[in-house]
Amino acid sequence: MQIIFYADGGAAEQWLTELHKALPLADVRVWQEGDSAPADYAVVWKPPAAMLQGRTGLKAIFNLGAGVDAILQLGGSLPAGVPVVRLDDAGMAVQMAEYVSYAVLRYFRRFDEFDAQARDHQWRFLKPRRKEEFSVGILGMGILGARIAEALLQFDFPVRGWSRSRKEIPGVHSHAGVDELDDFLAQSQVLVCVLPLTPGTTGILDRATLAKLPKGAYLVNVARGAHLVERDLVDLLDAGHLGGAMLDVFHDEPLPSDHPFWNQPRITITPHVAALTLRGDSVRQIAAKIKQIERGQPVAGLVDITKGY
Amino acid sequence: MQIIFYADGGAAEQWLTELHKALPLADVRVWQEGDSAPADYAVVWKPPAAMLQGRTGLKAIFNLGAGVDAILQLGGSLPAGVPVVRLDDAGMAVQMAEYVSYAVLRYFRRFDEFDAQARDHQWRFLKPRRKEEFSVGILGMGILGARIAEALLQFDFPVRGWSRSRKEIPGVHSHAGVDELDDFLAQSQVLVCVLPLTPGTTGILDRATLAKLPKGAYLVNVARGAHLVERDLVDLLDAGHLGGAMLDVFHDEPLPSDHPFWNQPRITITPHVAALTLRGDSVRQIAAKIKQIERGQPVAGLVDITKGY
Repeated sequence: MQIIFYADGGAAEQWLTELHKALPLADVRVWQEGDSAPADYAVVWKPPAAMLQGRTGLKAIFNLGAGVDAILQLGGSLPAGVPVVRLDDAGMAVQMAEYVSYAVLRYFRRFDEFDAQARDHQWRFLKPRRKEEFSVGILGMGILGARIAEALLQFDFPVRGWSRSRKEIPGVHSHAGVDELDDFLAQSQVLVCVLPLTPGTTGILDRATLAKLPKGAYLVNVARGAHLVERDLVDLLDAGHLGGAMLDVFHDEPLPSDHPFWNQPRITITPHVAALTLRGDSVRQIAAKIKQIERGQPVAGLVDITKGY
Repeated sequence: MQIIFYADGGAAEQWLTELHKALPLADVRVWQEGDSAPADYAVVWKPPAAMLQGRTGLKAIFNLGAGVDAILQLGGSLPAGVPVVRLDDAGMAVQMAEYVSYAVLRYFRRFDEFDAQARDHQWRFLKPRRKEEFSVGILGMGILGARIAEALLQFDFPVRGWSRSRKEIPGVHSHAGVDELDDFLAQSQVLVCVLPLTPGTTGILDRATLAKLPKGAYLVNVARGAHLVERDLVDLLDAGHLGGAMLDVFHDEPLPSDHPFWNQPRITITPHVAALTLRGDSVRQIAAKIKQIERGQPVAGLVDITKGY
């Protein structure tokens, strides 16, 4: 079995070592420009178009992450009929739950304000926010959204979820489709974006959307930088409509050193670390799926290319 | 039925309104110096000795909080044979779980370091800590400790608990008694103190204890300031043995403006807000317990005065 590997910015050698261990009978190689030798599987993160173009002989392409936008942007260069398989979770869901719980707790419990007071050596009680009036709205209720909801419910936060099709998750108030988006936004004191990036969701966090959140609302973006119209966020913070934001993803990464976000104290910036692909978990999952395919069994995580996720 | 009320620093009027509503047939009054008229129950927070002295006619004293150290310090002034009843939870446990989860996530996910980088407009990846090597140890496994454990387990943290007598909590590695304390400390990358304050636990977080934590360990104190020898914490931070601390309680509160903690960037300070007594929940609980006592039923939360909690 031949496997070609490519990971943009990744430590190829360590991935190869793990893949060899998990699939000792496979021949795994790092794809290089000009390599058109046959392959059964491709394991990729942000691959160049030339790697996959015309490779209709592949049995599957595995994407090293939950978001498949970088692969789908290859469009016509993707070999027709080859299934694209996304990592279901591979340790990412709990990391997302950690990140979002941290962001929500920091804002809800006013820890950011206590930090600011402490810098001034100030001991001052601040009136607690009321949980009953503090709904967290999750945009995107797939595997990651559901895990985030589970973590927040455990702290008794009221949780709402929005997705294209209605999801029934115990304890979560479910909103579905464009018709129910405004109602969802109006009731989300914190808005968490964990949507897939598709043509339909690009720029969804714009002025029109963010203005529908209640006054003082907080934004958490752990999906893709292109979901957010960055200028609109700055305007709504400056206008006092939004209370703050914690952002892990940006239009340009690394965030340019002269970007206005750096100077906005109510924006907390992390360098795209909310959920890292864990090598061990990912390789185990890919190896298991390859074995399923070889046995002719169905695999989970198949990407619907028409939907974009 | 006569109820006397006293709350140090509290909004007596609002408590009285709630108590009247919950127990409409009771006569509730704020205790004042010199009031020795009969009473059936006392509802108190940090009461003066004169309020309770000699009042053997009380059927119970209710403490407006989980920690009963301020009442027990009255010692011989407490009327003999009168049960002291602590609030079991009254909304405090989930607040403790929120606070500790926040502190643990902030340290584990290195959000404090990302904040520092962001202040310098720096976008830099930091190697994630490994959860398998990141045990959280909870000192004190009562109602609050158990709720904290539940929240942390949900994020897949390895959780250890230490208490005087062994507690069996699913998923928690239980340590009990003085003999097992050192082993517990040696394996706690984060140490969370939620012990009752008794003569036996006063100053328990001293140099000897903190030095047994692994290098780089983090301390969270949400119990009482007197558990910690503050000078020893500063020394162990300066020596590089401890990685940081998040403290909600202090020897002197408010924390004096010239206290060295304010200038130590690795100490996060909050002004005793980890778990506020919620008036509504507390009053409902007290009213329910009074009804149980009047019907001759046993009540939960009885303080064992010899143990001190």
